[in-house]
Amino acid sequence: MTDHSRSFCAAVDWGTSSFRLWLLDDEGTVIASSSSNEGMMHCVGRGFAPVLDAHLAKVGTPARTPVLICGMAGARQGWLEAPYMEVPASLMALSAQAARVSNTEGDVRILPGLSLNDPQAPNVMRGEETQLLGAVGENGNALVCMPGTHSKWVKIENGTVTHFSSFMTGELFSLLTKHGILRHAIEADRAVSADDAAFLSALERTTVQPHAALSGLFGVRAAQLLGFEERADGGAQLSGLLIGGEISAARGLYGEGLDVILIASHPVDALYRTALERQGFSVALKDAGEASRVGLFNSAKRIWSQ
Amino acid sequence: MTDHSRSFCAAVDWGTSSFRLWLLDDEGTVIASSSSNEGMMHCVGRGFAPVLDAHLAKVGTPARTPVLICGMAGARQGWLEAPYMEVPASLMALSAQAARVSNTEGDVRILPGLSLNDPQAPNVMRGEETQLLGAVGENGNALVCMPGTHSKWVKIENGTVTHFSSFMTGELFSLLTKHGILRHAIEADRAVSADDAAFLSALERTTVQPHAALSGLFGVRAAQLLGFEERADGGAQLSGLLIGGEISAARGLYGEGLDVILIASHPVDALYRTALERQGFSVALKDAGEASRVGLFNSAKRIWSQ
Repeated sequence: MTDHSRSFCAAVDWGTSSFRLWLLDDEGTVIASSSSNEGMMHCVGRGFAPVLDAHLAKVGTPARTPVLICGMAGARQGWLEAPYMEVPASLMALSAQAARVSNTEGDVRILPGLSLNDPQAPNVMRGEETQLLGAVGENGNALVCMPGTHSKWVKIENGTVTHFSSFMTGELFSLLTKHGILRHAIEADRAVSADDAAFLSALERTTVQPHAALSGLFGVRAAQLLGFEERADGGAQLSGLLIGGEISAARGLYGEGLDVILIASHPVDALYRTALERQGFSVALKDAGEASRVGLFNSAKRIWSQ
Repeated sequence: MTDHSRSFCAAVDWGTSSFRLWLLDDEGTVIASSSSNEGMMHCVGRGFAPVLDAHLAKVGTPARTPVLICGMAGARQGWLEAPYMEVPASLMALSAQAARVSNTEGDVRILPGLSLNDPQAPNVMRGEETQLLGAVGENGNALVCMPGTHSKWVKIENGTVTHFSSFMTGELFSLLTKHGILRHAIEADRAVSADDAAFLSALERTTVQPHAALSGLFGVRAAQLLGFEERADGGAQLSGLLIGGEISAARGLYGEGLDVILIASHPVDALYRTALERQGFSVALKDAGEASRVGLFNSAKRIWSQ
């Protein structure tokens, strides 16, 4: 039987469209966990506290167990705004900037996001900063690639985030597939795999011509009209163009032939690993969910183990 | 009173979402004209002939006046497929490849589109080839930029199209504005003007960093979250990033500091002229509607004035 008396904290990754909770002991081991699609979008208007309470109850959390949250729950339109920490920002310092929810029974805090206050390339993240802490640690040096709806590339020097950039790769794939003319050229249900010939060939194109992510999009349809490609390959081709385009641009921003930590989940982990290696990066893969959990636990230790 | 006895032909530009007809005399002068939103999308299922007949009647077209059509009416899913002419293709030869509609009373023909049968960069156009003939002539040499939902860049040598590329600039702007996260950052009804500071500053960014069309998109929202920009400027900024990104990519494909013929309509003509000039092109502007009409007339002369 699970020993809930060992509960140290509940760690919550609360994103735009998903909720994930782990009940952890004081060594960070998972006692129980729960997840759902009750992300921020679900809770706006209906309230955040009932969703949290239901998950805490579901996994049998003892009363007064502290709760640490990261992600969009801390956005202005979320539960309670946890103001951005401005880059350069030490990952170790996230815990000290957590916003405390006032009208709850126990101790509930939300970690801040990060902002890059450069008028030429302004940027924000929420949730990824916690994954960075979990995957890179308090004193790490790394270039990190975090694929997603809005992919992030992050430079970390001695535990301090010094720069980051965003690419709307996942959103562009979704918009083009669902609403644009390319929906005629793509089987939306078909999964893309990293060894698809159409994926690899599109990657190759973006390596040679970084602008292929723009100049090659219409070609996904034209190739089918002209009989060069099958509709079954459209998704793989579009995926290769967009992911390859992102990585080409990141090479321009951060440099060639570097080591990169890839924080990702199945199935995009394999696509990005292949795409990064094809463009000369050396890849170390870290699981995104695990990175969130470890980052939350690290911060919780700093708050509640003094 | 209009003298319809001078009618030489009816010229029709039949696009995806629009229909435009001119009744022309044998010098190409407009006797009467008519337009509507009865494009190909409207006619699929309902039929093309009734739409054409109604417009012909509306402008008082004499019986047996020949009709020449360009655009999507000639697509596979259109009225009658007018197979693509493969590049390199002489613009003068378009008329000889027109497909003749069989079950109509008069002589109705549809001009072919062009295809680039390069497996590495396959491409197609329908309608633009006729504008090229109208704007560049039968023996012209030019690099041409044709903005639109799917912008085209075309290289013409001695009246022969030798290469072209496509950019989904207009479609990306529409998808990102209507369906994506940037809809929160853009006032969709607000027109962008070529002297908007946000437009010019985004253009400048793509000139220095060609990948800004990808790496800068998320920043349109981030800039507003951080208070650097107003929502009123979001559309101008996105427009600058996408148009600037297209032109940066085209520089990579076709070269620097070139003369370019811009075939466009209001209001994108001014945006593209500014964007092209900022990236070192010398621009000669031609009106898109006039280019269609002149191209259709030129081809009609070849068919019916032998």
